[in-house]
Amino acid sequence: MEQLTGLHFNRLLLTGAAGTLGRMLRPRLKRYCQTLRVSDIAAMDPAAEGEEVVVARLEDEAAMYELLRGVDAVLHFGGVSIEKPFSTVLPANIVGAYNLYEAARRHGTKRIIVASSNHVTGFYGQGETIPAHVVPRPDSYYGLSKAFGENLAQFYFDRHGLETVSVRIGSCVPAPEDRRHLSSWLSHDDLERLLVAALSAPVVGHSIVYGVSDNRTTWWHNDQSRHVGYRPQDSSEPWRAAIEAKQPLVNPKRPEARYQGGAFVTLGPFPFAGQE
Amino acid sequence: MEQLTGLHFNRLLLTGAAGTLGRMLRPRLKRYCQTLRVSDIAAMDPAAEGEEVVVARLEDEAAMYELLRGVDAVLHFGGVSIEKPFSTVLPANIVGAYNLYEAARRHGTKRIIVASSNHVTGFYGQGETIPAHVVPRPDSYYGLSKAFGENLAQFYFDRHGLETVSVRIGSCVPAPEDRRHLSSWLSHDDLERLLVAALSAPVVGHSIVYGVSDNRTTWWHNDQSRHVGYRPQDSSEPWRAAIEAKQPLVNPKRPEARYQGGAFVTLGPFPFAGQE
Amino acid sequence: MEQLTGLHFNRLLLTGAAGTLGRMLRPRLKRYCQTLRVSDIAAMDPAAEGEEVVVARLEDEAAMYELLRGVDAVLHFGGVSIEKPFSTVLPANIVGAYNLYEAARRHGTKRIIVASSNHVTGFYGQGETIPAHVVPRPDSYYGLSKAFGENLAQFYFDRHGLETVSVRIGSCVPAPEDRRHLSSWLSHDDLERLLVAALSAPVVGHSIVYGVSDNRTTWWHNDQSRHVGYRPQDSSEPWRAAIEAKQPLVNPKRPEARYQGGAFVTLGPFPFAGQE
Amino acid sequence: MEQLTGLHFNRLLLTGAAGTLGRMLRPRLKRYCQTLRVSDIAAMDPAAEGEEVVVARLEDEAAMYELLRGVDAVLHFGGVSIEKPFSTVLPANIVGAYNLYEAARRHGTKRIIVASSNHVTGFYGQGETIPAHVVPRPDSYYGLSKAFGENLAQFYFDRHGLETVSVRIGSCVPAPEDRRHLSSWLSHDDLERLLVAALSAPVVGHSIVYGVSDNRTTWWHNDQSRHVGYRPQDSSEPWRAAIEAKQPLVNPKRPEARYQGGAFVTLGPFPFAGQE
Amino acid sequence: MEQLTGLHFNRLLLTGAAGTLGRMLRPRLKRYCQTLRVSDIAAMDPAAEGEEVVVARLEDEAAMYELLRGVDAVLHFGGVSIEKPFSTVLPANIVGAYNLYEAARRHGTKRIIVASSNHVTGFYGQGETIPAHVVPRPDSYYGLSKAFGENLAQFYFDRHGLETVSVRIGSCVPAPEDRRHLSSWLSHDDLERLLVAALSAPVVGHSIVYGVSDNRTTWWHNDQSRHVGYRPQDSSEPWRAAIEAKQPLVNPKRPEARYQGGAFVTLGPFPFAGQE
Amino acid sequence: MEQLTGLHFNRLLLTGAAGTLGRMLRPRLKRYCQTLRVSDIAAMDPAAEGEEVVVARLEDEAAMYELLRGVDAVLHFGGVSIEKPFSTVLPANIVGAYNLYEAARRHGTKRIIVASSNHVTGFYGQGETIPAHVVPRPDSYYGLSKAFGENLAQFYFDRHGLETVSVRIGSCVPAPEDRRHLSSWLSHDDLERLLVAALSAPVVGHSIVYGVSDNRTTWWHNDQSRHVGYRPQDSSEPWRAAIEAKQPLVNPKRPEARYQGGAFVTLGPFPFAGQE
Repeated sequence: MEQLTGLHFNRLLLTGAAGTLGRMLRPRLKRYCQTLRVSDIAAMDPAAEGEEVVVARLEDEAAMYELLRGVDAVLHFGGVSIEKPFSTVLPANIVGAYNLYEAARRHGTKRIIVASSNHVTGFYGQGETIPAHVVPRPDSYYGLSKAFGENLAQFYFDRHGLETVSVRIGSCVPAPEDRRHLSSWLSHDDLERLLVAALSAPVVGHSIVYGVSDNRTTWWHNDQSRHVGYRPQDSSEPWRAAIEAKQPLVNPKRPEARYQGGAFVTLGPFPFAGQE
Repeated sequence: MEQLTGLHFNRLLLTGAAGTLGRMLRPRLKRYCQTLRVSDIAAMDPAAEGEEVVVARLEDEAAMYELLRGVDAVLHFGGVSIEKPFSTVLPANIVGAYNLYEAARRHGTKRIIVASSNHVTGFYGQGETIPAHVVPRPDSYYGLSKAFGENLAQFYFDRHGLETVSVRIGSCVPAPEDRRHLSSWLSHDDLERLLVAALSAPVVGHSIVYGVSDNRTTWWHNDQSRHVGYRPQDSSEPWRAAIEAKQPLVNPKRPEARYQGGAFVTLGPFPFAGQE
Repeated sequence: MEQLTGLHFNRLLLTGAAGTLGRMLRPRLKRYCQTLRVSDIAAMDPAAEGEEVVVARLEDEAAMYELLRGVDAVLHFGGVSIEKPFSTVLPANIVGAYNLYEAARRHGTKRIIVASSNHVTGFYGQGETIPAHVVPRPDSYYGLSKAFGENLAQFYFDRHGLETVSVRIGSCVPAPEDRRHLSSWLSHDDLERLLVAALSAPVVGHSIVYGVSDNRTTWWHNDQSRHVGYRPQDSSEPWRAAIEAKQPLVNPKRPEARYQGGAFVTLGPFPFAGQE
Repeated sequence: MEQLTGLHFNRLLLTGAAGTLGRMLRPRLKRYCQTLRVSDIAAMDPAAEGEEVVVARLEDEAAMYELLRGVDAVLHFGGVSIEKPFSTVLPANIVGAYNLYEAARRHGTKRIIVASSNHVTGFYGQGETIPAHVVPRPDSYYGLSKAFGENLAQFYFDRHGLETVSVRIGSCVPAPEDRRHLSSWLSHDDLERLLVAALSAPVVGHSIVYGVSDNRTTWWHNDQSRHVGYRPQDSSEPWRAAIEAKQPLVNPKRPEARYQGGAFVTLGPFPFAGQE
Repeated sequence: MEQLTGLHFNRLLLTGAAGTLGRMLRPRLKRYCQTLRVSDIAAMDPAAEGEEVVVARLEDEAAMYELLRGVDAVLHFGGVSIEKPFSTVLPANIVGAYNLYEAARRHGTKRIIVASSNHVTGFYGQGETIPAHVVPRPDSYYGLSKAFGENLAQFYFDRHGLETVSVRIGSCVPAPEDRRHLSSWLSHDDLERLLVAALSAPVVGHSIVYGVSDNRTTWWHNDQSRHVGYRPQDSSEPWRAAIEAKQPLVNPKRPEARYQGGAFVTLGPFPFAGQE
Repeated sequence: MEQLTGLHFNRLLLTGAAGTLGRMLRPRLKRYCQTLRVSDIAAMDPAAEGEEVVVARLEDEAAMYELLRGVDAVLHFGGVSIEKPFSTVLPANIVGAYNLYEAARRHGTKRIIVASSNHVTGFYGQGETIPAHVVPRPDSYYGLSKAFGENLAQFYFDRHGLETVSVRIGSCVPAPEDRRHLSSWLSHDDLERLLVAALSAPVVGHSIVYGVSDNRTTWWHNDQSRHVGYRPQDSSEPWRAAIEAKQPLVNPKRPEARYQGGAFVTLGPFPFAGQE
């Protein structure tokens, strides 16, 4: 894609740079800044020109403080991004989020764009459409940790003036793979559009945006956050016929089909025993 | 149009197949199923290959039970579709709807797509825009019967898990003919798009969608039902200049111009004596 | 109770006068009118002074026309008031309601107070509180017929200016009998208060009011209809301790405990197969 | 642009014809009427064929009465359009609006399209998105006067049946000039589209529409007024990169960046002492 | 009544002190302050101990500036309080309100309690119940001027931090006199309770409260402003029977019965030609 | 107080029994159960008859598992209840809440009543009134941890059917002490009423209720949770005059006066730098 904003940041920080989305985003983000600092706990590609590569654990308060030094804005993709036991989610996503915000506050970082998740509202039904400002219904420990992150962001804005855009990412994969993705897919290009919009909107306070492409079917709308300026341009439609032909049968009473969070509502060591 | 979904049903039932919309839909629906069963009380074209033609009265409980045998999903266009005395509307649209749902429940039919009507909310004003989840304000016995059908659909979902998409059809004619149609027109192609979306969305519970094309002016929005995935592609705009030139004068105080239901609000053996 | 309004009607009509509520209301209503006409299909006590006793079937259009002659306002308690097969509900509650309204329109009757029912919204949960203007979720054929009645009332007001107050009666029994009644109970005195308020409010259009006493626990609020002026004065609280002691265990996952409509959601010849 | 409606008015009145927008609109409006009457207090170009040029002060009741004679509909762009002392705003925008409506009422003029302003809601934040039906939060005496005009329009519709579309114009300049304009810009062509839509929609009562192009970022949505049929076709996006590069820094805590009204919230002889 | 707050102001200003409500309030307000300054353009009783009597025209900017000197808080009952020609309403209620707020701003006055009016929303129907935050529908020039005053108050809070409670007074008379009053009555004692609540609530920003007693029937609720702490203790109920007996007939189609504003919707030199 | 419910539980668990509220509640709760188990990490009074005293750390997963054995329902008052560094809040309130719910899930405990807090929404203004279902705006790490607990409760209900009532306690002290308490006070008796209501309501799912007495001024309403049946009977009003006289001056621009959370919004090692 062409460069999506006339803004040029001095230094952006991308956390979670060794993850699937992090690796995809790293070359894209380089266009929008003088220096791109990337971090993870796992091995990353060596620093290219204009890049800084830092190994830092989110739960390491001191390391996070150093990581934020000199950073204009953060794209926070670090932490656990799938369902895990609470003991795994806790340090990475809850302690880690706190460490990140506290470091940002102390350094005076202006804005954080957070990879939140549709799993914050995963227990809403696939037969309804919701806006961003609903009561959270997380579908997993992962979703719970992301709901915590959104509340943390609200607090750091109300209390300290640090702005955040929380992006409730749908299914960000190269191409839609199943019938749920037809509604929840977010293309890589649209994710870039959304991140750039979130970085460049002049005033965001704490805004929440669903990260979803312009799919024909969807469960979400972003009418409460038009000020962020996210306009998706991709759609799952070209994949529809093949996916529908491959997966014709959906039992609307099975929890994973019934709720927006899909299979997340049934993951874990224990059986589903909810509203069904 | 090309085929709009990768899904292929074993057997679809189209009621009201001898009606204006039924005749238009019959060849279109054949693409989405192995067998298309069509029914009406009036004479229909003989069955082509892959078709089954059944004469059945909606008010005949036993006939309806037979009609639903082996059906995956129903497109219910049968019954009275214009204003008639209550004694005419009752058997076709109220008793008939009950018979249809009860037969579907007994056979385990999965989903019904109902030709509901904008006349369910016809007493809202042409100077306002409404979503689907408003208190019904039917404008006629016909509108009343369609409101009954929507409540019936909600009941059969809540009680029996039978899913419905109620389509509040605007003015489904080949081309817009008057100034009201500029707002209410639904093209034949968009109706097909909507029916296919309603058939193929994995989870719908009971959803309500206004059946209207992407007209520049409209009184309705479908933001509460984006999960159904209806995206109109046609518009009344090409007909606008000619219609406006032909019909420049509209008296906004006349009931038929003031209310969304148009002339329906004044039909019948008795004069209008409402809010005017 | 003392007389609750300074208004005095020339002739009021009470339908369903042989029913449980009808018999209770008959002596109470006499205070508010010169002549009280009562009707039913079953045997009624003979007419006392100032009373007129008429046997009339709701589904008999001509009889209903005669019944409405000379009537100022109607309290419509006739028809089926429990769950019955649709074929039983239909003539009494749907055809009957139409006949009543059409007769009232032709005679110029000013207002109808209808015994609607909480079963119009019986599929909302006992763990939530709802106002009157929600999408109906009837829990039974009975509830469906009452939802039809409310739409009919809206239509006759919008179209003909005939005013209605639809009273969604909770559990109108002499005293609360079970744990559901602790929330849904309507005392006989409060019903009288509500009917008199509905009769005497100067302007009501079509208003919907939940008929429930001032119970400590409830699922409904009437904030959208304060103009009707219903202020309950009774409460289920004095019966609470005894009922809770007698019925300590409620399984919140059983449909009859989970939904506001209580056991209605499971009545009928078929098993519950809904959202559970 | 091509002519946007098939309607053709006998006589349209454009007030404020000597102003920046008035001069731009004058040749465009000529297409939609037999006679275009233009008025202002300042010098205007002489009348071309099919034009009538009238000098008239808005605060001159008699002059306004004469001005409205024979007029089908009004496009009211007269009055003060920037922040001024209250004593300047009052006669032009408050007394003038009254005179205009009173003259229109007496002549039976059918509809007025008013250049209202985003400054009616200028104290909402740039970090939120609002619909038209919010509590006004004017940011200036100018904004206050426009809020008065909207209430006046509502009154003349409710009381006298005179219809109005109030257009809350954003930033109507040839091209976006700064970062606020990226959200608030209204192109000249889109203004024409909006005015024509407002003139030709059959029923509008009193409707409010934000006058803004289809910019990627915005603070407003018009979902409550889709019946007016405004569909913008322009966007600030082509100017974005250059403007963002030129104006990278925005301090979201400064009042002019924080509120939708921009610099208007700080204009005047006194310092800002509000919610900051 | 006993003194309703432990707060004691140094100097309160009561405008409109020669009016009906002003004369009633003057002795009551004395309890809450060291000095009560009262003003009007008409003759007032001479100053008692602890009182200051000032003759001042609201439209006299200099006089208003002097009037506000040394004032802690204002109870603004001055101006026109019934329907009058716009030329009469304008100086007193629009220019006068501006002069009052501007003087208060310059003196640093902390809070203004304004006698606004139910006529700001008088075109809502008597058959509906509304909260404070609705789109204004004024029923008169008087109502328009009060809507202006509310917007002015919002502006002076957003822009200058000057707090206001706008009190939409119903019918503040010694006792209810007609059927409309049964819903709209505000007792003198309840008005005092409301004014004291508005003066003593620690934070109000710009809050709107309907000034109405705890009448059984009403069209308004104050749930959006519970922070102000107004709890009415009087009711129109004791007058109901007599009033209903005296005024049994109300034609709900007559504008004065149909709209909340009552007869105001039909006052003036011109006939009603609105939505009827 | 008399016993407030006819229900009698076999075993209730009260966590935080050594805290201020825990000590107050312990004797009150004994009335509602055969056995009252109390727990804390600090010293508690020895077990009286019908009591079990257990020392258990919330962050000790195994200890919590043992603690929940044989428990019908939990009143969770354990953890940190004032603002503390995040490292202190985390183990007690976040890890502890998880341990509690996970233990309850494994034991099949039916319901948990949680001492949540008004600090979950502490950044809403004192000049507005909010219901329970708003976007959280926590004012502290403490408030953040309570928001986490509410989301956790929603998750355990949606996923496992474990019911919770989250009680957003205001200021639960023996008597109101300052002007904020006049709005936020919750009497000890009303807390008992609320807990008993929450324990005995048959169906609650996850419900949120503000724990506040029937104070004349308040910022909260519980209309969305009337099904829980909380009816406060106490009020801060008797303390008002003395408190207002003692604390007449409140600067509405200071954060602690401006926000509902009061001084919590400014606590901590860092200065307030938010929306002020």
